[in-house]
Amino acid sequence: MTKTDQPIADVNSSYCKSKEKSIFFIGAGNVATHLSQALLHAGYEIKGVYSRTVSSAQTLADTLGCFWTTNILELVEADIYILSVKDSVLEELLFKVIQQSPQAIFVHTAGSIPISVFQGKVNKYGIFYPMQTFSKKCAVLFDNIPIFVESSDNEVAQTLFSIAQSISRHVEFLDSDCRLRLHLASVLACNFANHCYTLAAQEMDKAGLPFKYLLPLIDETAKKVHKLSPREAQTGPAVRYDQNVLNKHLSLISETIKRDIYSLMSLSIHQNTHD
Amino acid sequence: MTKTDQPIADVNSSYCKSKEKSIFFIGAGNVATHLSQALLHAGYEIKGVYSRTVSSAQTLADTLGCFWTTNILELVEADIYILSVKDSVLEELLFKVIQQSPQAIFVHTAGSIPISVFQGKVNKYGIFYPMQTFSKKCAVLFDNIPIFVESSDNEVAQTLFSIAQSISRHVEFLDSDCRLRLHLASVLACNFANHCYTLAAQEMDKAGLPFKYLLPLIDETAKKVHKLSPREAQTGPAVRYDQNVLNKHLSLISETIKRDIYSLMSLSIHQNTHD
Repeated sequence: MTKTDQPIADVNSSYCKSKEKSIFFIGAGNVATHLSQALLHAGYEIKGVYSRTVSSAQTLADTLGCFWTTNILELVEADIYILSVKDSVLEELLFKVIQQSPQAIFVHTAGSIPISVFQGKVNKYGIFYPMQTFSKKCAVLFDNIPIFVESSDNEVAQTLFSIAQSISRHVEFLDSDCRLRLHLASVLACNFANHCYTLAAQEMDKAGLPFKYLLPLIDETAKKVHKLSPREAQTGPAVRYDQNVLNKHLSLISETIKRDIYSLMSLSIHQNTHD
Repeated sequence: MTKTDQPIADVNSSYCKSKEKSIFFIGAGNVATHLSQALLHAGYEIKGVYSRTVSSAQTLADTLGCFWTTNILELVEADIYILSVKDSVLEELLFKVIQQSPQAIFVHTAGSIPISVFQGKVNKYGIFYPMQTFSKKCAVLFDNIPIFVESSDNEVAQTLFSIAQSISRHVEFLDSDCRLRLHLASVLACNFANHCYTLAAQEMDKAGLPFKYLLPLIDETAKKVHKLSPREAQTGPAVRYDQNVLNKHLSLISETIKRDIYSLMSLSIHQNTHD
């Protein structure tokens, strides 16, 4: 797998032109909420928002000061439609959006859906994948978030690249195969690491101690991998495969799935430390 | 399990007195290195360092400006001996240290070894457990690190509490059962989360992308749980148990243990989100 061979040198010339593009958001979830607000802040015209539910559509449209609808067949015209929805409904929605503005650029923000989802359906399309964990309740700065772009042709490439550059310092062209692996990496580093925090929170609860006591440890663990590789940064009983400690910990865990996770992760840590 | 019932009200009066105590470190690993340096900086006299290897003993003693030895039977006298060594060798070393200074206070820093390890061997003893991940190459500030203390009697409790307070704002008395669960929580939140970073690093490597692209995601994941519970903060395909995405990811993973980790963690995330 390699990065896509796109004309990066031509990209900057299209910067001003792309600011004239208007954008419509299909979806009002975590990604759509943060991305639309960042693009509005960067000077783009957000034409409207579609969501399945009135509350989501209205809440986001209110922050953007734009049109909203819950009827996918009643969109307003825009230069770019950004689909930021669950993978399972993307194709169905895409089909309906295309009918209304076949000449527009169609973009999705998913890590795991290949660009081929657009092929044969529309002429201009691309991917705009910001690699971050978004929750509506937590503000994020896009500046430092890597954005990975892929496109149907050079013109769309330039448009998407310059839009991405208007909100982030880290923009890369990347093909779909590479992006899928990147998405897997992001699930491991974020969703799985966060689940480790959840499992730890349960133990703190059982010990009658507040979760906040773990925050210095969680922060330091994240901070260390800015300086050391995570393999070098690894500490704890599993590195030495200290079975005495591992068995004491297992004796505290009654849930089968949590015991299996503990055993597998410990073995994997040990194997990775000594490979 | 409950916190131990120690006389917290009496603790502050012993602050000055405890600064007169001299300390000897058995062990020169990650914990001993950071803890001894913090205590020296706080004004304690570090009498010496023992390590199995010349290089570890000498390196740490040089930073502390103190005596060092690799012969456990040739220690110098001190008021407190802090044993910061692998769980598997602690009892054997403790036996040899006690012979030389039976009237001193003996302390260990392990999360998973109960205070009963000292019982019947010596009169004054305790636990001094700083909950943090320590690597020699990474400087840490103790100020924010929770330290958990347990002791043989009130006098030792006061001594250890005031020593802990001289380097940290978060000091608690905690019994051995509770500390073992706390240690399990720390392994989950730190060692397992860090291993998720390692697994992610391998995928980045396969995609030909630098690990540093993951840092904003890793930082945000840690930052979010300062505001939301990790369960509320959870995002990603496993929350919805989107089997289409899960199967695409599994198709990229060839190692059996990594596939099993991926499947178990995804199932556990889903169960925890919907409980």
